[in-house]
Amino acid sequence: MEQTPDPLARLRTAAGTREAAGLKRSLRARTPDDDGLIDLASNDYLGLARDRRLIEAATEATRVWGTGSTGSRLVTGSTALHAELEARLCAFTRARGALVFSSGYLANLAAVAALGRGALVVSEAGNHASIVDACRLSRSRVVVTPHKDVTAVEKALADRDEEHAIVVTDAVFSVDGDLAPLAELHAATVRQGALLIVDEAHSIGVIGPHGRGAVHAAGLAAEPGVVRTVTLSKSLGSQGGAVLGAPEVIETLIDTGRSFIFDTGLAPGSVAAALAAVDILQNQPELPGCVRTRARELASMARELGLETNDPAGAVVPIVLGPPESALRAALICAERGVRAGCFRPPSVPVGRSCLRLTARANLSSEDLAVIRGALTAVAEMKVTM
Amino acid sequence: MEQTPDPLARLRTAAGTREAAGLKRSLRARTPDDDGLIDLASNDYLGLARDRRLIEAATEATRVWGTGSTGSRLVTGSTALHAELEARLCAFTRARGALVFSSGYLANLAAVAALGRGALVVSEAGNHASIVDACRLSRSRVVVTPHKDVTAVEKALADRDEEHAIVVTDAVFSVDGDLAPLAELHAATVRQGALLIVDEAHSIGVIGPHGRGAVHAAGLAAEPGVVRTVTLSKSLGSQGGAVLGAPEVIETLIDTGRSFIFDTGLAPGSVAAALAAVDILQNQPELPGCVRTRARELASMARELGLETNDPAGAVVPIVLGPPESALRAALICAERGVRAGCFRPPSVPVGRSCLRLTARANLSSEDLAVIRGALTAVAEMKVTM
Repeated sequence: MEQTPDPLARLRTAAGTREAAGLKRSLRARTPDDDGLIDLASNDYLGLARDRRLIEAATEATRVWGTGSTGSRLVTGSTALHAELEARLCAFTRARGALVFSSGYLANLAAVAALGRGALVVSEAGNHASIVDACRLSRSRVVVTPHKDVTAVEKALADRDEEHAIVVTDAVFSVDGDLAPLAELHAATVRQGALLIVDEAHSIGVIGPHGRGAVHAAGLAAEPGVVRTVTLSKSLGSQGGAVLGAPEVIETLIDTGRSFIFDTGLAPGSVAAALAAVDILQNQPELPGCVRTRARELASMARELGLETNDPAGAVVPIVLGPPESALRAALICAERGVRAGCFRPPSVPVGRSCLRLTARANLSSEDLAVIRGALTAVAEMKVTM
Repeated sequence: MEQTPDPLARLRTAAGTREAAGLKRSLRARTPDDDGLIDLASNDYLGLARDRRLIEAATEATRVWGTGSTGSRLVTGSTALHAELEARLCAFTRARGALVFSSGYLANLAAVAALGRGALVVSEAGNHASIVDACRLSRSRVVVTPHKDVTAVEKALADRDEEHAIVVTDAVFSVDGDLAPLAELHAATVRQGALLIVDEAHSIGVIGPHGRGAVHAAGLAAEPGVVRTVTLSKSLGSQGGAVLGAPEVIETLIDTGRSFIFDTGLAPGSVAAALAAVDILQNQPELPGCVRTRARELASMARELGLETNDPAGAVVPIVLGPPESALRAALICAERGVRAGCFRPPSVPVGRSCLRLTARANLSSEDLAVIRGALTAVAEMKVTM
């Protein structure tokens, strides 16, 4: 063994390698009024994070309950507000049980690791990083199936030696923005006696009537073998996540979900903001349709300009550019022309698939769309000249 | 392969097994004024979660910034408030860099998995569940060393084939409440060219002058090879976590920390509450000493009554009772006598070590202590008669 006198040297070497590959990142701190750019980068799809109703709910809850939940949900971290949000999420999504987490990442870790323990875990190639980590934490055999390949999923289930199995998929994929074949996946899991876990991070508040999500839209909300995870931090404008499922699923997570048991409960203000957001979705059913329409308009615009994109199921519209440098340059061009776009490079996307990730918002105006057209035109010109 | 027509059947079977073993859990939702019990269960060690200054800071930040951070820290989830908290945490703990996460669990996952990738990971037996999960996510070889056994740590480091290594330990252990031998561990890591990661979840705000934590108290704050993780949700009364370390460490996590990159940033209100808590620790340096004194008083009281406990380094005082049923009954006895105590059973503690977990608070009065003595006396009597 060679001794390393400076334990940070290897980190500097690795940083140099990332720099050379165009993979260095830096944090940009927003200011309250920001820089006047049109936001196509955030996940605040419905514009609720700055909605007066959410702000009032969060501040009132903070005054009543304090700034933290003070402990694990199992000890002192469950308040009446948490129970109310869980009941309201059940009513809204037609789930039989719900459990709120401090982050969607931790909700996925608990659901997949606890339900996948001792079972075959079938995970699709496009799944979010939190699901990939959750598969690893299950310590079970994991089969990764190609994007939206139901035949491969069913084959993995049918060929298994394990008695039990789970299948896990994003509903709307976080960068590609397309929809999983939920009905077909569900039929396969029923035939093969497996649980189906669906991550609704990018579909809750966006897909189906009132934004009840893709599982509800597919008519699967009452299916006992379907488990959903959701985030409260995207369309719902708050922070945190939740698992939705049968009482047996919720009990399993309460007793054995490590990232539930060993984490501090969600702060009361965030719980209240999410509650207010669910109320708004009940009362303003047009919001999810607005964001889907805007996303399709963005995709049509990109396609007309010769850019590679997708048919967006929800709010996410990718513009695939290839090498990381092209994505970085395109994001800069957008910013110069008044548009903030997400710039996604490995490890957020596969190598060679660096892209702009545009997210539609329900309240984009036609003036905004004209500015966006100008920015995407410049990106298309850059692509031609590179 | 035998087909399972009801994919929930195995969950019901497992729940029955847990029930029979005394390991079923249920959530108790607090009410705003709760039930008048003395709180020895929460991690709100300094009583800051309901402090007016934190509440004002959180509500003001929510009005200015909204109820959510709207995206990953790398996209739109970093605000000027996040940058301010990172700078203030550096100044307070004498760290050279800081990175705020939405939970301490996710901070540990990122620090240990990203810094442990491709290295030997040496993890101590008493470490928190989030560190155990993080070790698994590193996908490296993991050696678990006995509780506070520095010789075993050094042997694992010296015997390794891997060029690089990290050692990870809780500073104050989350249930046992004792302190890791940080100076000795650091000396071993320096000799062996390894990084040392210290989880200050239960020591920040509690240990050392102003509660700057155990690493600072051990004189190690400026050591380049020492990385700290902290929670903002315990003594700091808010939600979230942070990693503290050299700029090389912070850059590594920004570029490669999966639970940083792929999680939504901490909500602005929670960031502001943590900032207010750090201010209070700067201005009221007596708070951490108060909580440590109260913890020692609780431990002395337990020992006088013949109960098995520890010398508490910080706020955590365990009362070891053995089987889960004894811990459950003891918690009930405490509640009947006006005291809320944490009840810890496997998987939160090893089998046979179920316990009450008492947490001292800085503002416990002598009247409170009299009530607590009554409750612990009844627990001791229960133990004798069982």
